Amino acid sequence: MPDPKSYLAEHRPNQLEELFSLLRIPSVSASPAHAPEVHRCAEAVAGLMRRAGLEKVGLHPTGGHPVVYGERLGSPGRPTVLIYGHYDVQPAEPLNLWHSPPFEPEVRDGRIYARGATDDKGQVAMHILVAQAMIGQGLLPLNLKFLIEGEEEIGSVHLASFIAQHKALLAADYAVVSDTTMLRPGVPALCVGLRGLAGLEVRLRTGRHDLHSGTFGGAVPNAAHALVELLATLHDAEGRVTVQGFYDDVDELSPAERRAITSLPLSEREFLDQAGAFCLYGEPGRTTLERVWTRPTLELNGIFAGFSGEGRKTVIPAEAGAKITCRLVPHQDPAKVVAALTQHLRQHCPDAAQLEVLDGGGDAAFLAPTDHPAVRAAVQALREAYGQEPDFIRMGGSIPVVTALQEHLGLPSLLMGFGLPDENAHAPDEHFALENFGKGMLALWRFWQLAAA
Amino acid sequence: MPDPKSYLAEHRPNQLEELFSLLRIPSVSASPAHAPEVHRCAEAVAGLMRRAGLEKVGLHPTGGHPVVYGERLGSPGRPTVLIYGHYDVQPAEPLNLWHSPPFEPEVRDGRIYARGATDDKGQVAMHILVAQAMIGQGLLPLNLKFLIEGEEEIGSVHLASFIAQHKALLAADYAVVSDTTMLRPGVPALCVGLRGLAGLEVRLRTGRHDLHSGTFGGAVPNAAHALVELLATLHDAEGRVTVQGFYDDVDELSPAERRAITSLPLSEREFLDQAGAFCLYGEPGRTTLERVWTRPTLELNGIFAGFSGEGRKTVIPAEAGAKITCRLVPHQDPAKVVAALTQHLRQHCPDAAQLEVLDGGGDAAFLAPTDHPAVRAAVQALREAYGQEPDFIRMGGSIPVVTALQEHLGLPSLLMGFGLPDENAHAPDEHFALENFGKGMLALWRFWQLAAA
Repeated sequence: MPDPKSYLAEHRPNQLEELFSLLRIPSVSASPAHAPEVHRCAEAVAGLMRRAGLEKVGLHPTGGHPVVYGERLGSPGRPTVLIYGHYDVQPAEPLNLWHSPPFEPEVRDGRIYARGATDDKGQVAMHILVAQAMIGQGLLPLNLKFLIEGEEEIGSVHLASFIAQHKALLAADYAVVSDTTMLRPGVPALCVGLRGLAGLEVRLRTGRHDLHSGTFGGAVPNAAHALVELLATLHDAEGRVTVQGFYDDVDELSPAERRAITSLPLSEREFLDQAGAFCLYGEPGRTTLERVWTRPTLELNGIFAGFSGEGRKTVIPAEAGAKITCRLVPHQDPAKVVAALTQHLRQHCPDAAQLEVLDGGGDAAFLAPTDHPAVRAAVQALREAYGQEPDFIRMGGSIPVVTALQEHLGLPSLLMGFGLPDENAHAPDEHFALENFGKGMLALWRFWQLAAA
Repeated sequence: MPDPKSYLAEHRPNQLEELFSLLRIPSVSASPAHAPEVHRCAEAVAGLMRRAGLEKVGLHPTGGHPVVYGERLGSPGRPTVLIYGHYDVQPAEPLNLWHSPPFEPEVRDGRIYARGATDDKGQVAMHILVAQAMIGQGLLPLNLKFLIEGEEEIGSVHLASFIAQHKALLAADYAVVSDTTMLRPGVPALCVGLRGLAGLEVRLRTGRHDLHSGTFGGAVPNAAHALVELLATLHDAEGRVTVQGFYDDVDELSPAERRAITSLPLSEREFLDQAGAFCLYGEPGRTTLERVWTRPTLELNGIFAGFSGEGRKTVIPAEAGAKITCRLVPHQDPAKVVAALTQHLRQHCPDAAQLEVLDGGGDAAFLAPTDHPAVRAAVQALREAYGQEPDFIRMGGSIPVVTALQEHLGLPSLLMGFGLPDENAHAPDEHFALENFGKGMLALWRFWQLAAA
């Protein structure tokens, strides 16, 4: 019997081919036109599960895209772990910025390039492939359940109710969620905090239809003017959110928490390089990690009005809109944040415009229990696989499943992710490091061994 | 020899049939599929010119749709007038809102209903039919040249270069442009002012690519934030343009000019109805007509950043942009306005963003010389034909041919239009009042008599 490392290395070509077969399917959950592809990807995940030797494999309908479930419960008396991932992906647009087609995966410079490579098909495949390896050799020492959803990129809209309706099916001792990143190459990480999310859409209207700027310009309102005037009130000159009550429930870090974060070796130059931004920018008096891990934000995700095509169109737009999301920190209530923001928008909307606010809902932030036995097992497994002590990190993003598992099943989640922050998760040229695909599978293999003990 | 009025009344059936034969051709210049129809319409205009007794009649190729030219130079020593009009039309969509098919002209309630009836085939036909009547009876007392283009509705894209390349052919004493409207039924109008135009496009960039708002939000700049912050500086709270120097070359109206405009009976309710806007809005202390005729504007024609599709995308946009045009009034130099605006944008651009400004060029405003003998002749001719003193009006838009004739031929233009503002020039149920078709031809007939003296 080969050791895990040799076994995994030997089967690498097949593992990559299994992953590529998922990456080739444009399972863009946000796009109604892609619904058949999303469904086809769910079938492909189920197929991979069946080949891995999982049981009770199947697609479970939800109000939207299906959940794929599979399990291997061959170790009575040993822990049962619920593994979570998602098979849907972000839209690939703008396509012209990709250096290889987003749904034709290829390996370049030790990286797998494709939409979904790091977020999250790569990590989903790692879990199933490790199960396949251990099951195939009769070595799986504990019980695994797989919950792979198809709506993570659109807010996991039906996941919480699915979990609430399948409590027996999903019952477990804890969950492992692999949809997070490491802080830096070569050093594994466990994520102990996530920001939450709240969102809304703003629509302004100044008239029934667009107007000719020659005939009417100067005497009628312009919806684009009203929009920029309104949106410019949301931040002060230094980047703080000006919405009344926005920071009310935000805890300041304890000195110990602050030290733990400050001690992590984040290079602001590297962070900037990863971001591809021209400069750092944020609340004064906070480090970059404090800003992205522990402070709430208000971001314009999109603004739109009038004519954006080639050339010139002398039009006065009658409507304009913006999509806004806030990242939340522990103790902030998404509904309260949306209400405060809506109130601000109503108060500051120019008189010449009619305002409509569409509540996009949200999820609270998460702070993990660091004293759980599974956490100790995970730390050791990661240490062995990488030869490095793991970082305890937080993440600026949110993972709705973590909230839902806690709320409906009482399950703590262990956030063990193998992506890297510069892998363009939601951008062109998304990729996933082969090194972490390999070492990550080794860590998972070792983790199941240690966690079964 | 009958008097002009009797002659025109007697020949009305034939005149309408000539006009209808033009209106039946869907010469939609914006639609590549309609190119053969546009060409067929040019041939039809040329046919009408030949029947009228014009000479050197023919189609002149341009980079796009042809120009139709014809002339009658039988009066040496008398003025030569260049008549401008266009035979192309706006698209007829939405077709379901027409009460009779757009290309099957019919008379109802004293109006000719068809796409192109008022804009501009009706007015083109009037000019050719008056020439026909006077030439046929040996009464044309001056020299006429006809320049009828086929691209007015798509911005007269090839007209300026055609004029520049045919200076000798088009040489004249002045031009008469019949593509404007009267202000109100029963009262003829001379349009003595057009606003100019200057435009540019703004592009902001805060990084190399869009970013995930969870991973990076709070620590990097957002191009959409930078854009709304920048664009919100362009106007003050009351709608004035804040760009330094923007109003420097703008003349205040003389008390007499102001009185002339204030005395015109514009109903703000009707203006609002036409606009479909929810309210009037503009520079304080100015009437609506002052605002659209005599004041410059700065309009956002379009703004764009990030994600504008269905649903949510938690992205931090790395680029954002806006299209801006200014309507200019006499004495404002488009290049100077673009420079001042560019300077403002550079000064106010947030530090976190890189700014690119693309100069879209422009055209100066136009103010007709009201002391020209042709103007005095036109006023008298209109007064006689309508039994009313003509309104001196302006228009908020620009007419590219007016600029091109001034620039390349040094020709002043006399803007004598017979449409009405509510004749749906670019909308369903376009129509043209029979009254103005008749009185307008009478006015043109008398105009040539007076202008020849």
